[in-house]
Amino acid sequence: MTFGECFETKCSSASFPVCVGLDPRLDEIPTVTSERALAASSSREDAVRNAIARFHELVISAVADLVPAVKLQLAFYEQYGIAGLLALRDTIAAAKRADLLVIADGKRNDIPSTAEAYARAFLGRASVFGESVPAFDADALTVNPYLGWDSLVPFAETAQQHDKGFFVLLHTSNPSSRDLQEAVVDDQPVYLRVAGPVSALEEEFFPEGRFSSAGAIVGCTFPAAAAAIRRALPRSPIVVVGYGAQAGNLSGCAACFSDADDGAIVNASRSLTYAWPEQPGSEDDVVATIRANTERMGSDLVAALMSRQGVAEPLSR
Amino acid sequence: MTFGECFETKCSSASFPVCVGLDPRLDEIPTVTSERALAASSSREDAVRNAIARFHELVISAVADLVPAVKLQLAFYEQYGIAGLLALRDTIAAAKRADLLVIADGKRNDIPSTAEAYARAFLGRASVFGESVPAFDADALTVNPYLGWDSLVPFAETAQQHDKGFFVLLHTSNPSSRDLQEAVVDDQPVYLRVAGPVSALEEEFFPEGRFSSAGAIVGCTFPAAAAAIRRALPRSPIVVVGYGAQAGNLSGCAACFSDADDGAIVNASRSLTYAWPEQPGSEDDVVATIRANTERMGSDLVAALMSRQGVAEPLSR
Repeated sequence: MTFGECFETKCSSASFPVCVGLDPRLDEIPTVTSERALAASSSREDAVRNAIARFHELVISAVADLVPAVKLQLAFYEQYGIAGLLALRDTIAAAKRADLLVIADGKRNDIPSTAEAYARAFLGRASVFGESVPAFDADALTVNPYLGWDSLVPFAETAQQHDKGFFVLLHTSNPSSRDLQEAVVDDQPVYLRVAGPVSALEEEFFPEGRFSSAGAIVGCTFPAAAAAIRRALPRSPIVVVGYGAQAGNLSGCAACFSDADDGAIVNASRSLTYAWPEQPGSEDDVVATIRANTERMGSDLVAALMSRQGVAEPLSR
Repeated sequence: MTFGECFETKCSSASFPVCVGLDPRLDEIPTVTSERALAASSSREDAVRNAIARFHELVISAVADLVPAVKLQLAFYEQYGIAGLLALRDTIAAAKRADLLVIADGKRNDIPSTAEAYARAFLGRASVFGESVPAFDADALTVNPYLGWDSLVPFAETAQQHDKGFFVLLHTSNPSSRDLQEAVVDDQPVYLRVAGPVSALEEEFFPEGRFSSAGAIVGCTFPAAAAAIRRALPRSPIVVVGYGAQAGNLSGCAACFSDADDGAIVNASRSLTYAWPEQPGSEDDVVATIRANTERMGSDLVAALMSRQGVAEPLSR
């Protein structure tokens, strides 16, 4: 099954079109989990790995039957060195066991011969003393387009070969994403220019199915851009980012969905996994709070999608 | 000492302005080294780590008294998973023991709060159970500007705090770098637009000294662009990339240097570390060949810099 088909299947069977962001921040992991890891580990490195892996097991158990996907923010793992990357590997395995789509959010890219190595690292396999061995083996990777269209090709090739996907950064959620992504070139903003090669790769590598395996990252903080990207790439899975970063972005989220209310998942990280009314007293409390946070966000999203159905002119589309 | 000062000192005492690129490719590591690693290791993961770390020790011993810096291509380490990243940590330590500048070529970036985590991972320290702990601790990191100018600030802040540096991708060496980097916005190509915030960060964070700690990545395959970038950023250290990728790029390399023939280092990877006339019979042969390759490239570069001094109108400047 292609990534695009898998995306469609998992989204249609999930309760909410939410992607749960996993950003390890040791200082914010509940003490009930981090102290347990410290007590059970023989070294500081082990404690780091165990605290992160255990916390993410709790998150996954809280949300696995509600959502289709998790997005692992690689920067937050890398800041803890080898221990963090061992926890990354543990968490990818745990999310797969729970049947969640695993998106490695590394925003990687380089010239084509090096982009191939990134594709091998996260989506494919490397040749190791005559054997073909996976390294991190996520389902999809986020990819930066600054190096040009040829740099996207290795991800498409590897994704096609291994039934994986990739998400190209089109318009990110931060305020100064405008600096480059909204720069106008030949009457077209950069974020829409980048949709061109994504569409071409879809046609070449993933011509079948309702959704392709060549997706886009889109900030809900720029609703008009989101609507334009959805129009330009009707078959791309979209990961919507920036939810919760500022008020009033539900319309930006809704703009990323198809007219059939699918094709997108909305990511949130801190507001789901690190938002405690008070320090949780038990791991059951941790799970219950994360589940409640996710249900609340999911319900808000579903309501936003339903309310636009009543509008004679669909939102910005 | 700031990174900019360190860059100046190391470049002035090195024989050649060459940066040796370290891209682990297990299949191309000489069998004399890889077979030794396989025989001495108890697991495949150990053998991967040991083969890469040992090969890079040989490279470092071959060039440490000739060049100022090595550039470690993170994609090639990541493709081997945890074993590759352990070898990355080993190689960073070996390069530092040899007094080489260590540039982590990860082309990382994200929105500012996540860019902070990347800066901690490669240039700073993370908070780990109340202690401040480095993860990969390179001297400099390469950074992608697509996310906008605010995404560059965390690297400048962390570099200032820890005497590190960063190199922003301005114009890369691959043919389709043109797609986005040469797009013209308000009569200015994107690669020169990106020079604006780099210059602003230099003034704010690194106002002292001949060279700042905010550098640029520039492909020698686009000589006119290289010359324009050198003019726009007279105080930025430049890592020149793409050497050896196509004929006739010595003028592109020369264009990245100051009128005093400094301020830049030219990277080469495969042509130095994987170019054997025949399979080497001993590790001494490995070292000798890599040293000879580096001296040949260095001499070509020095000759190119000297020859432009005889020109009445300096090359493109």
